[in-house]
Amino acid sequence: MLNKFFKDINQIQFEGKNSKNPLAFKYYDKDQKVGDKTMAEHLRFSVAFWHSLMGSGRDIFGDPSIKRAWHNAKDPIDKAKETMDAAFELLQKLGVDYYCFHDRDIAPEGETYLQTVNNLKTIVEHAKELQKSTGVKLLWGTANLFGNPIYSQGAGTSPNAHVMAFAAAQVKNAIDATKELGGENYVFWGGREGYETLLNTDLKHEQEQMAKFLHLAVDYKKEIGFTGQFLIEPKPAEPSKHQYDFDAATTLYFLKEYNLIDYFKLNIEANHATLAGHSFEHELAVASAAGKLGSVDANRGDLLLGWDTDQFPTDIYQTTMAMMIILKQNGLGSGGLNFDAKVRRSSTDTIDLIHAHIGGMDAFARGLLIAHKIIEDKVLSDFIEKRYSSFNSEIGKKIMSGKADLREVEKWVSQAEKPILESGRQEMLENIINSYIC
Amino acid sequence: MLNKFFKDINQIQFEGKNSKNPLAFKYYDKDQKVGDKTMAEHLRFSVAFWHSLMGSGRDIFGDPSIKRAWHNAKDPIDKAKETMDAAFELLQKLGVDYYCFHDRDIAPEGETYLQTVNNLKTIVEHAKELQKSTGVKLLWGTANLFGNPIYSQGAGTSPNAHVMAFAAAQVKNAIDATKELGGENYVFWGGREGYETLLNTDLKHEQEQMAKFLHLAVDYKKEIGFTGQFLIEPKPAEPSKHQYDFDAATTLYFLKEYNLIDYFKLNIEANHATLAGHSFEHELAVASAAGKLGSVDANRGDLLLGWDTDQFPTDIYQTTMAMMIILKQNGLGSGGLNFDAKVRRSSTDTIDLIHAHIGGMDAFARGLLIAHKIIEDKVLSDFIEKRYSSFNSEIGKKIMSGKADLREVEKWVSQAEKPILESGRQEMLENIINSYIC
Amino acid sequence: MLNKFFKDINQIQFEGKNSKNPLAFKYYDKDQKVGDKTMAEHLRFSVAFWHSLMGSGRDIFGDPSIKRAWHNAKDPIDKAKETMDAAFELLQKLGVDYYCFHDRDIAPEGETYLQTVNNLKTIVEHAKELQKSTGVKLLWGTANLFGNPIYSQGAGTSPNAHVMAFAAAQVKNAIDATKELGGENYVFWGGREGYETLLNTDLKHEQEQMAKFLHLAVDYKKEIGFTGQFLIEPKPAEPSKHQYDFDAATTLYFLKEYNLIDYFKLNIEANHATLAGHSFEHELAVASAAGKLGSVDANRGDLLLGWDTDQFPTDIYQTTMAMMIILKQNGLGSGGLNFDAKVRRSSTDTIDLIHAHIGGMDAFARGLLIAHKIIEDKVLSDFIEKRYSSFNSEIGKKIMSGKADLREVEKWVSQAEKPILESGRQEMLENIINSYIC
Amino acid sequence: MLNKFFKDINQIQFEGKNSKNPLAFKYYDKDQKVGDKTMAEHLRFSVAFWHSLMGSGRDIFGDPSIKRAWHNAKDPIDKAKETMDAAFELLQKLGVDYYCFHDRDIAPEGETYLQTVNNLKTIVEHAKELQKSTGVKLLWGTANLFGNPIYSQGAGTSPNAHVMAFAAAQVKNAIDATKELGGENYVFWGGREGYETLLNTDLKHEQEQMAKFLHLAVDYKKEIGFTGQFLIEPKPAEPSKHQYDFDAATTLYFLKEYNLIDYFKLNIEANHATLAGHSFEHELAVASAAGKLGSVDANRGDLLLGWDTDQFPTDIYQTTMAMMIILKQNGLGSGGLNFDAKVRRSSTDTIDLIHAHIGGMDAFARGLLIAHKIIEDKVLSDFIEKRYSSFNSEIGKKIMSGKADLREVEKWVSQAEKPILESGRQEMLENIINSYIC
Repeated sequence: MLNKFFKDINQIQFEGKNSKNPLAFKYYDKDQKVGDKTMAEHLRFSVAFWHSLMGSGRDIFGDPSIKRAWHNAKDPIDKAKETMDAAFELLQKLGVDYYCFHDRDIAPEGETYLQTVNNLKTIVEHAKELQKSTGVKLLWGTANLFGNPIYSQGAGTSPNAHVMAFAAAQVKNAIDATKELGGENYVFWGGREGYETLLNTDLKHEQEQMAKFLHLAVDYKKEIGFTGQFLIEPKPAEPSKHQYDFDAATTLYFLKEYNLIDYFKLNIEANHATLAGHSFEHELAVASAAGKLGSVDANRGDLLLGWDTDQFPTDIYQTTMAMMIILKQNGLGSGGLNFDAKVRRSSTDTIDLIHAHIGGMDAFARGLLIAHKIIEDKVLSDFIEKRYSSFNSEIGKKIMSGKADLREVEKWVSQAEKPILESGRQEMLENIINSYIC
Repeated sequence: MLNKFFKDINQIQFEGKNSKNPLAFKYYDKDQKVGDKTMAEHLRFSVAFWHSLMGSGRDIFGDPSIKRAWHNAKDPIDKAKETMDAAFELLQKLGVDYYCFHDRDIAPEGETYLQTVNNLKTIVEHAKELQKSTGVKLLWGTANLFGNPIYSQGAGTSPNAHVMAFAAAQVKNAIDATKELGGENYVFWGGREGYETLLNTDLKHEQEQMAKFLHLAVDYKKEIGFTGQFLIEPKPAEPSKHQYDFDAATTLYFLKEYNLIDYFKLNIEANHATLAGHSFEHELAVASAAGKLGSVDANRGDLLLGWDTDQFPTDIYQTTMAMMIILKQNGLGSGGLNFDAKVRRSSTDTIDLIHAHIGGMDAFARGLLIAHKIIEDKVLSDFIEKRYSSFNSEIGKKIMSGKADLREVEKWVSQAEKPILESGRQEMLENIINSYIC
Repeated sequence: MLNKFFKDINQIQFEGKNSKNPLAFKYYDKDQKVGDKTMAEHLRFSVAFWHSLMGSGRDIFGDPSIKRAWHNAKDPIDKAKETMDAAFELLQKLGVDYYCFHDRDIAPEGETYLQTVNNLKTIVEHAKELQKSTGVKLLWGTANLFGNPIYSQGAGTSPNAHVMAFAAAQVKNAIDATKELGGENYVFWGGREGYETLLNTDLKHEQEQMAKFLHLAVDYKKEIGFTGQFLIEPKPAEPSKHQYDFDAATTLYFLKEYNLIDYFKLNIEANHATLAGHSFEHELAVASAAGKLGSVDANRGDLLLGWDTDQFPTDIYQTTMAMMIILKQNGLGSGGLNFDAKVRRSSTDTIDLIHAHIGGMDAFARGLLIAHKIIEDKVLSDFIEKRYSSFNSEIGKKIMSGKADLREVEKWVSQAEKPILESGRQEMLENIINSYIC
Repeated sequence: MLNKFFKDINQIQFEGKNSKNPLAFKYYDKDQKVGDKTMAEHLRFSVAFWHSLMGSGRDIFGDPSIKRAWHNAKDPIDKAKETMDAAFELLQKLGVDYYCFHDRDIAPEGETYLQTVNNLKTIVEHAKELQKSTGVKLLWGTANLFGNPIYSQGAGTSPNAHVMAFAAAQVKNAIDATKELGGENYVFWGGREGYETLLNTDLKHEQEQMAKFLHLAVDYKKEIGFTGQFLIEPKPAEPSKHQYDFDAATTLYFLKEYNLIDYFKLNIEANHATLAGHSFEHELAVASAAGKLGSVDANRGDLLLGWDTDQFPTDIYQTTMAMMIILKQNGLGSGGLNFDAKVRRSSTDTIDLIHAHIGGMDAFARGLLIAHKIIEDKVLSDFIEKRYSSFNSEIGKKIMSGKADLREVEKWVSQAEKPILESGRQEMLENIINSYIC
């Protein structure tokens, strides 16, 4: 096992819920069967290179607060390789099977376009070897189309065609890299695909640009035979004033409008959901109802703060609700639970990274166990089935099967007694959830 | 002219911007031409029966604070007739050509279903005569599917099929009433079409119910030959935890998903936009870009408060932005600007209703004048055209016309210089808007 | 035991956490000792007359959805007595020792001022007997200074002196009633004490009015020898645009500014905290740090909705954090945990009231057990103590004890090494909390 | 006149409201008398070094997008001097009389503490000469206690006493620098004075630390005879989860609690107000009512975004409301209107800085003109006076002068008719404001 950057840390073990060891799993037991799959198969955890390897603690008012041993090398390529080494060591010690990256996380920009392309290829080779030797896999790759200032006004939706072309070329290379590494998905997060002010914006033109941009990627995917799932990650705003992929429904509308719906699923992030005014489970439910819940960015936000805090998930209520939706749709397919989360700016030690991931993994393991039990017991599902049962007969059945028009409906209504509504029993259902927590 | 409930008030006149008379228009001059249409033709104002005739000042913590002379009659039908009389007097004195209503605003519920139906017919007859004698027209009708407690758990999306049928029958009668009165549109606002908790909700079933519900209405419309435009009014929440028609994009997605898109346009409300986390102009722009901006509920919210305050529109910036979008799409067609706004709970006098409408009408008249001038001067449009001009040639043109694939784009990029991004000039553009205000 | 309005319900029993009986406590075991007090002594639960006896399910868009058997009597006094009977039956069956009321909840307004006063006296007599026969006590009383439309523009802060006087007289009677019933506290919630628009408001005058208003009450309290604690309940807004008692700190400032600080403590409500942009525990912590945490309105809000949803508390994280603060200050003294919470509008059955209270009581019982264990184990407190330990020696000690001025501090700094900051360990601490949940 | 970094730009002239020149003032006419003072005397504009000279367009997702000619020098001291030169050139060309800075904006950190101190002294000398030669003055100085990662966990409220001491020494030098430059005020913005999680925080200890920290500064101020006004700038959060100076009222409470109230006034920022859930004018009104409105950070936020966007002020409604409050308290004394605002990240040209300031200055000049006219016409003040007039006689007068106790008030109420409430006329008042806009 790799042992260079996290020397003080042994592989994290499952010790059960009574363990007092902060560096052990209390609930996540990788090979434990829950239903017909192991926990690892259900949860498909992934470490985010972006935050956990590259995060520096910088915020809008302050300089980097976190120093990482893997960033010491002076030569950018050496530094990138060491960072990749650290990533795989972290993955192994956590027992996480997947990782995710942006192109610019793993390989430094060069002086010229070609140099940048070559840098990426160099590091992809390095990662490939590490994957082979460790068995760790790539959940998804993506391109960073927001950090470089040329993307200040958008990438696919830049008013500058050259920038759009530049972004498209970058995406091509990121897809190539993802394919080379056997990535199971490829993600688009349009961090600057939006507008700052309508005063200088042609909204429809930008939407059409974005559609073209994605069609280029779809065509290229087919051409090269990349079989991973394309995913779009909605977010309402930040850094832009408005982002075109505001939330799940908005994104699904866009994909339908521009004939892209067959090629994409959604990557739902908890904190992006709440920034859009939705609960995490709402966004998961909307995506799932459309058959489009492809993957999850598993973090949490602070609902009293108005920006993406990207905290590690710890709320058992949220992980339970999320796992109920995921279990009901029979898992995430090629997707997974990616910890798109960063340690707090004051959590400056390497060990904080470990605490953070343990906490997130245990929180989802608990959510899985609880959700599985709730589904098995059918308490909620029986209640819901009964609640809608009037649609299985009489006028309900007729309406739903298209066998009654408004005149007939009115006739039925005018002859019937007044409808009687039963209690929704929200409090009892909330109590039931609480009784499963533990 | 009717003169019973607003005896102290003469018809409001245009007196120009230097008038100090609070009961005169300073900007709204009905017959003044702006471009090729009169102000009245551009703005198509409508008084909302719901708020202005029926509003009582009740809020969630307090009893009605406003007493209206037209609510004195004891017999419900007499009261309804007097209220209708008051509406037309108000319309005439304001010089507003349109009004809008919910079925339950204008006609009281009866003991039985049939009685309720008959009550509505009685008042529709009364309104028809008033329309004839005054020339006032009906902008739209709608059904109140939220006030009656049987709709506590939804109307079209009620888990109770009987309730859904009841709602459908109610909609049939409301469409009949709207047709009878020559209504130019019919609106659906799904105030309870949403959920309180996912714990007792089958989200997909409810969406399918809603689709069936709307298809029933579409079929009926065709059958009876009602030619008005069907409109849906998005709102994110309140009173429900979540409403299915969250915002414009969400609603457009729903309409596409369920093959309803050809039969509906959107009625955008300013305050619903802001509750969904969008600016008013954003929602107008999204609807307009989709060719679906059908009508406007012209009010304003308080962005620091989390509920629908439904205040009369007074912010010239907002009315200007709104009119720019409306002018660019060449008007609202059969739609209009409906004052879905209520006087404050402490504005207890009848005259406050007059102040409120004068303020709203003047604010939109100013918005119209400013927007027209800005468009005529082409300051913004020239800037925008230039900003996107790189798409008219070279790689931009190729991409947008589908004549380059990713390989070609990359080749072009690798041979080109680095892209150069021009300033977005937001501050200058904001200053230009300010220079037109006045 | 009373047995008229909740006939189907026996007294709720503690059955332990493995019980599947939804009508049993899983955690709340009244007489169980936790530390040196019983659960009942720690938690001092109270039922809110306002919501649980008087709530009708009305919301801003809909009529009452909930019918209660105790509201059937036609005569207002009979109805009020039956409602009081129902309250005590509910209290007994839940095993709750306290209740709270507004004057207008328990006694109907009369035609004249004197009649209203007499109505209150009549019902107070009735309540007194019920208290005697059941042993239930009054946690606090208060006056409803927001429902009657004369309070539309404020009560103590009304611009109309007559209204202010009217409100003052009402408060006098409410204090009298509270004293008569042995109320342990008296609460002020200034639901309309704020403004709608600064355009018509003299903010300073209104603050001075409010101060006079409270001084009148303080003087009266002394005069009549009422020994209960006066409490103010902060809330930022709703129904008003702005409320003067925005949050704990704002209220403490007001009390200090007007020499009222010695006579008041705060009643912190969870949902009011979140509407003000604070977490529940923040407001508790601020009040407690000032020695002013007097009582708690134990409910929860929905952070994605912008109004007071007043839901029953069920989130174990929140109840744990709350109980940690309360235990650290050695309890709430004469205060308690009042369920200022209402069943959802769709929870239309009487049994829903029972489910709701069981859920709230169990949630706080769990919070108590967890918080007690955390405090006993000293995990967090040891961490915190160590974190601030540098203030126990050297320059830290000197500064805190006022023994160093800026020149000396600078001298020390200029001679010292650069400071070294230790990790804040937020993720580990969050994991520790999770390990106690269960 | 300096002419090096803004060579293409001449001094901005007043050309009146019909000018189409984007590089001219339309309303701000420095020497125009408004009442008994010139516009310059009323408005006391200040350029913020922080944003306008040092801003790079960096945001949390992207690298610097803005390059400034004055940042080209390699040597940090040369760069700092050139930046100061650019500042004064900008000030002169805008005709702005004041500037503000953080210590770290104007002078680079050195290797050692002493080097840092010396760097500041060097640049202060340079600034002093520029002030002398141009007549520009220093509105206020402050210390940046948030950028350096040692302040990650607070400065005055750091759990690390060494950090607190380090911050105190830094403040000493910043006060020295401010005094040396004749600064008229000194500001404290506690950007990291708050907490990230209560789990590791001793809230009361941190508040006491902060009080000690400020007392050290107060004592030092007296000792050295610095006569500028001390100001605190409230902000609720960001970057911290919670900031102790949440809003005006919270800050005033803190100052009172720790006997600091006599030594401080408030510097109110528009965008901080809205992040705290208040309108800009609310915070100004609260501070002014307490006699504590000392200065203003004149910017604007985006109420639909949850972070500090720090945009230049352009909304005439807001500048009007602000100037009404400022005029009523007879100006800001030694304070001013500091443009704590940054050009958008896409506004990458130097000229955008000019547009931005022109827009802000014109917006406040218009606000001044409108507010002055409204006050002169007494329309609002007469309305308000009449609204509260019942406090000038009878029971109102008695209550306010402390001459009636609750018994007497009740007696009066029981003999009087029911109170009659007059309309608050909000809509009419809003229309009046609109009639003055223009």
